[in-house]
Amino acid sequence: MAEYMTETTQRPAGAGGAAATPAGPPGEEHGEARALWSVGRQRSGSADTADGHDAPAILDRARSVVDPELRAAVASLPAALRRIARYHFGWEHADGTPAAEHGGKAIRPALVLTAAAAVGGPEARTAAARAAAAVELVHNFTLLHDDVMDRDATRRHRATAWTVFGDPAAILAGDALQALALRVLAQDPHPASPAAAARLAACVVELCEGQQADTALERRDPREVTLGEVLAMAEAKTGALLGCACALGGLYAGAAEDDVEALDAFGRQAGLAFQLIDDVIGIWGDPGRTGKPAGADLAARKKSLPVVAALTSGTPAAEELATLYARPYREGETERTTLAVERAGGRDWAQTEAADLMGRAVGELARAVPDPVRAGGLLALAEFVTRRTS
Amino acid sequence: MAEYMTETTQRPAGAGGAAATPAGPPGEEHGEARALWSVGRQRSGSADTADGHDAPAILDRARSVVDPELRAAVASLPAALRRIARYHFGWEHADGTPAAEHGGKAIRPALVLTAAAAVGGPEARTAAARAAAAVELVHNFTLLHDDVMDRDATRRHRATAWTVFGDPAAILAGDALQALALRVLAQDPHPASPAAAARLAACVVELCEGQQADTALERRDPREVTLGEVLAMAEAKTGALLGCACALGGLYAGAAEDDVEALDAFGRQAGLAFQLIDDVIGIWGDPGRTGKPAGADLAARKKSLPVVAALTSGTPAAEELATLYARPYREGETERTTLAVERAGGRDWAQTEAADLMGRAVGELARAVPDPVRAGGLLALAEFVTRRTS
Repeated sequence: MAEYMTETTQRPAGAGGAAATPAGPPGEEHGEARALWSVGRQRSGSADTADGHDAPAILDRARSVVDPELRAAVASLPAALRRIARYHFGWEHADGTPAAEHGGKAIRPALVLTAAAAVGGPEARTAAARAAAAVELVHNFTLLHDDVMDRDATRRHRATAWTVFGDPAAILAGDALQALALRVLAQDPHPASPAAAARLAACVVELCEGQQADTALERRDPREVTLGEVLAMAEAKTGALLGCACALGGLYAGAAEDDVEALDAFGRQAGLAFQLIDDVIGIWGDPGRTGKPAGADLAARKKSLPVVAALTSGTPAAEELATLYARPYREGETERTTLAVERAGGRDWAQTEAADLMGRAVGELARAVPDPVRAGGLLALAEFVTRRTS
Repeated sequence: MAEYMTETTQRPAGAGGAAATPAGPPGEEHGEARALWSVGRQRSGSADTADGHDAPAILDRARSVVDPELRAAVASLPAALRRIARYHFGWEHADGTPAAEHGGKAIRPALVLTAAAAVGGPEARTAAARAAAAVELVHNFTLLHDDVMDRDATRRHRATAWTVFGDPAAILAGDALQALALRVLAQDPHPASPAAAARLAACVVELCEGQQADTALERRDPREVTLGEVLAMAEAKTGALLGCACALGGLYAGAAEDDVEALDAFGRQAGLAFQLIDDVIGIWGDPGRTGKPAGADLAARKKSLPVVAALTSGTPAAEELATLYARPYREGETERTTLAVERAGGRDWAQTEAADLMGRAVGELARAVPDPVRAGGLLALAEFVTRRTS
């Protein structure tokens, strides 16, 4: 699964309908998507909302709530599995000595807590701490397994667990984290925990479906892959858990069934918008910011969303791109390939689609949380993840 | 994880303290372990117990209850994962056409249902159907993953899922079955389901610990492996889920906490006794019955329980065995290696230990279910799994 957590704030594609512009500074106002909100956000940060609307602050606060739960859950593992999990989370080096944390930015737990607060206020947020930890455990279980399957050697700037401990250890640590997630919920006395567990387990099945579709797509002839397939794959692989995080927050706050579904749709569409922008950055992002060489995704013949949109555009540039993708990458071809995707409309399509999705996401959010002040935290998080780089 | 389910009833090691004797006929009386029971079983099969005490009949009945639950759970999977799961369960061929079922004997679901009946009668057994399905889903999740890790090519006389669909597909199908198991419990309105889910999730962690220890042990110098390590590994890998199955049955029947623990200990110790006998069969079993060539485990240098007992016996035969195990297997060495294990006391130790464990298991069962008639079904199942071959 892709990572949302980075330090920089370049904006390669405009969320909420704005045209792509150069990156703004980190502290820049999050204006675009909010403009879609039916009510202005003049009251942002006012005293009637317990949560501020500053995404980095929300994420910091979520980490401070969820980290103790996560560490307690991992501490309950048998020694051999605990070691692998602690390494994976960035808490320890491979030899078991403490490490400066490289863990994720905790966007998923932040969505759980912020959705709970949006629906039920500060008490609901406090009560949802274990649900937030469970979602983060599931996320990390999928990372461990995806890295094994995709043979990815690096994660969060460190060697992946399977490269350090071997495939069986990484598979088993992932299995154990999934079990821990469901155990954390099963042991939570909160009345919403059984419904949350059922929803999280169903989400795991969807995440597996997405990863299965991804590995199958990578083996297929690029000319036979449809845009609908890739969008469905990205929704299952990336959107589903963000949607589930928001839905769990709603469940823990006692939201009505329709509102839980609207929160799920909000997170799901924001997640898909994120994936589109992540794919755009993978092609047109600044290598100095992304940390990946320019054109790495194209050289690997990745069937990312802009690429499949380009391939299926019926344009002459689509033909050229198909010819390039039909043979292995040759040194120095990055610019030509990038240009073919762009000329075939892959970039424009991805940016427009991301903006549309953010618009729809905001609409779902407005349905579940009509008060824009209460909804501000979730909106800030959605904008944060769709403005990131790398 | 090893399979308990076979058609034959050879008795290579005596359960309940009896000496190893040639196999009895399938219908033979299960006398030995019951002799340890404080009260005789004269009432076996009488009308005051709803469950007969005939293991094959109990297993048949469990399958008829659990199969619809399992099939419904698997039917809810997305198509790509459903196909792998149906193949793994033996319901379909790799091409999706229906297959004559080769699925397991459902010993774990039978333990859940029979434990529930022993504590709470027929109503409790009926109520525990989903818990039984959840345990079987967990068992099959571990089989899918273990086969990937151990590179085992055959399971239930068929090609393993990873050899047919690839590693990622088998890993993801396993992940999805774990999620299904916890979802089935989370959606079960029975008041015991949260406690059962927590217990099953904790058991998954223990199963992972056992498999992790097993893969680590296989890489170690045989002379450095202790009997305590191998026993602990076998308990985690094999005993834990049988114990959990019994405990879940107790939970669903409203058993007191102490009785749930005693049921867990019963299943756990019977499971470890099974593993000892399985290992004995792996060395001294009749290849015509086991389906494996004689000496296959020894040729693969497996650190099975009798082998480690022999290696750590301090006898001259232990030295000879260590020398053999220090180099790859050479054609025609089976008899010599087998004899070394036997002379070093590996066989006798395993049989005595299995008998001791069955005795302790029966003691735990008597504590949880003092009425021997009510306990008869569980006892019959425990004897069944410790009398099997292959």
